[in-house]
Amino acid sequence: MKTLATIDNTSLAIIPGSNAFNLAKNIAEKLGAPLLDIHRKVFPDGEHYVRINFEKLVVPPNYSIVVNTLYPKQNDAFIETLFLLNAAYTETSMNTIAIIPYIAYSRQDKLFLRGEPVSFEAVLSCLRSAGADMLLTVDVHSPIALKRYFKGFSINILVSDLLVKASLKYLDKPIVLAPDKGALNRVRYAALKLGLEFDYLVKHRDRVTGEVSLEPKELSVKERDVVIVDDIISTGGTIALAAQKCLENGARKVVVAATHSLLIGNALEKIRNAGVAKLITTNSIPIEETDFIEVIDLSDVISKELQRVIHV
Amino acid sequence: MKTLATIDNTSLAIIPGSNAFNLAKNIAEKLGAPLLDIHRKVFPDGEHYVRINFEKLVVPPNYSIVVNTLYPKQNDAFIETLFLLNAAYTETSMNTIAIIPYIAYSRQDKLFLRGEPVSFEAVLSCLRSAGADMLLTVDVHSPIALKRYFKGFSINILVSDLLVKASLKYLDKPIVLAPDKGALNRVRYAALKLGLEFDYLVKHRDRVTGEVSLEPKELSVKERDVVIVDDIISTGGTIALAAQKCLENGARKVVVAATHSLLIGNALEKIRNAGVAKLITTNSIPIEETDFIEVIDLSDVISKELQRVIHV
Repeated sequence: MKTLATIDNTSLAIIPGSNAFNLAKNIAEKLGAPLLDIHRKVFPDGEHYVRINFEKLVVPPNYSIVVNTLYPKQNDAFIETLFLLNAAYTETSMNTIAIIPYIAYSRQDKLFLRGEPVSFEAVLSCLRSAGADMLLTVDVHSPIALKRYFKGFSINILVSDLLVKASLKYLDKPIVLAPDKGALNRVRYAALKLGLEFDYLVKHRDRVTGEVSLEPKELSVKERDVVIVDDIISTGGTIALAAQKCLENGARKVVVAATHSLLIGNALEKIRNAGVAKLITTNSIPIEETDFIEVIDLSDVISKELQRVIHV
Repeated sequence: MKTLATIDNTSLAIIPGSNAFNLAKNIAEKLGAPLLDIHRKVFPDGEHYVRINFEKLVVPPNYSIVVNTLYPKQNDAFIETLFLLNAAYTETSMNTIAIIPYIAYSRQDKLFLRGEPVSFEAVLSCLRSAGADMLLTVDVHSPIALKRYFKGFSINILVSDLLVKASLKYLDKPIVLAPDKGALNRVRYAALKLGLEFDYLVKHRDRVTGEVSLEPKELSVKERDVVIVDDIISTGGTIALAAQKCLENGARKVVVAATHSLLIGNALEKIRNAGVAKLITTNSIPIEETDFIEVIDLSDVISKELQRVIHV
């Protein structure tokens, strides 16, 4: 990290949330911006307390940048983020920015049934009213809902191209596959950028045998390498089934590329057992790299995007 | 509860949060309004889901009234409230109302130290942006902060008079005492309404012996009954010490009257051990009535206040 003297001109302050300390630290290093200390406690009645140490700054920051992610412990992480934004807002000359690579409740992004909340709308409107002028996220489930419900400046960084690019170390001219039609956009983006073929999987049930097939709409996976791309791996069921079916249909090798790895319960085991060769993901949610898991650090794309939009 | 036919004209819907089912039920009964069923679940990844059953209503309600309280499990209860408000908002013809007798984080109502959030501001602005047009609460820690930070119509119902009135069953012309100067307003309100003497306790440290005394500013408690009035009992330390000192100074009998009883840890034991004869409180937080604890149901004052402001 650069010393204070060298970052006076940029006047940024990076404020790390509990779930994203390492990511915040990496962003601070890349931007040459100070990473502020946070004092946290829980009161006897269970109320959460945060305090940002602004004392180390000589001048108020032009931009306060709260970095947190909303998994694990969605609700506590959300409250902590609201409080950090509220506290940052008071000290900021220009804009308070929330960097939240994974936003919880993002899949409840429309009214599926009468009487439901649009939870994602509630979350976004709270982030805004707590103090976020700008929200930067990564590969959000519905980019349209992000734009519609966050009443400020919002940016969704697409990273499926980075994930697919990383898969090329392990695969030979792979087909880029979406597990369903809904996930086609991020697959198309990556494939077109990298000059690869792409398609999405379609489910068919045989009327006689009742057997379920899952095959690409147009292409054949036979004798081909495949990278299956999705935004979120939760319990891993969808991805594991997609991988298994590709291998059953003659694919040579299957790699899974997913931005946000929640990996609930035995998700990882399911994915390995389905015959997946590698899982490529990001640190939008804290995760350890292993022989099986390659983790792409998001601090690079996030820092570049910040430099682009706030000219620091 | 009245049948649907009889409440068609009022067009209210009462929506109970997890922490306030009984209070919501009582309010629904008093207003002759339907209490809607809530479907709740937690997804495998830990995200909370609610769905309000609006099917039983013939017409959309003019007023949807979400009743919840933010203790215990402050953060989860807060998120649930936001989601209920967001869901209710969609179905409501006129106004969405939040009834939250106890609002968590209400004591962090100003900037005590640099770099802190005003947590209460964050909570109130989120309730507003999630969908609450009106917020009704009970004996909030800072009525001024409520007005300042909730950017809608807000009402704070004072109940210290009800608590003190209830204490008259056990006490003879008591002095109404605030444990400190900050709590004087609600004591003054109750005492003036009931024609009783009032005062607040002041701490003195003897310069020679180092002994700490705690005595009313003007009055003497000697041979007098005393009711100590406060808004929140958390760990019970303040109230227990106040009661103990009153008894040491010759008070005949001490009753404690507090609106919100969190009663953290062994708070109740501390209060009993200090010699308090009775604790009078409300169901702003779910609590069981016992030989020692008298609980005043808030549904009556809340229903009356609602009838006054929305003319139902």
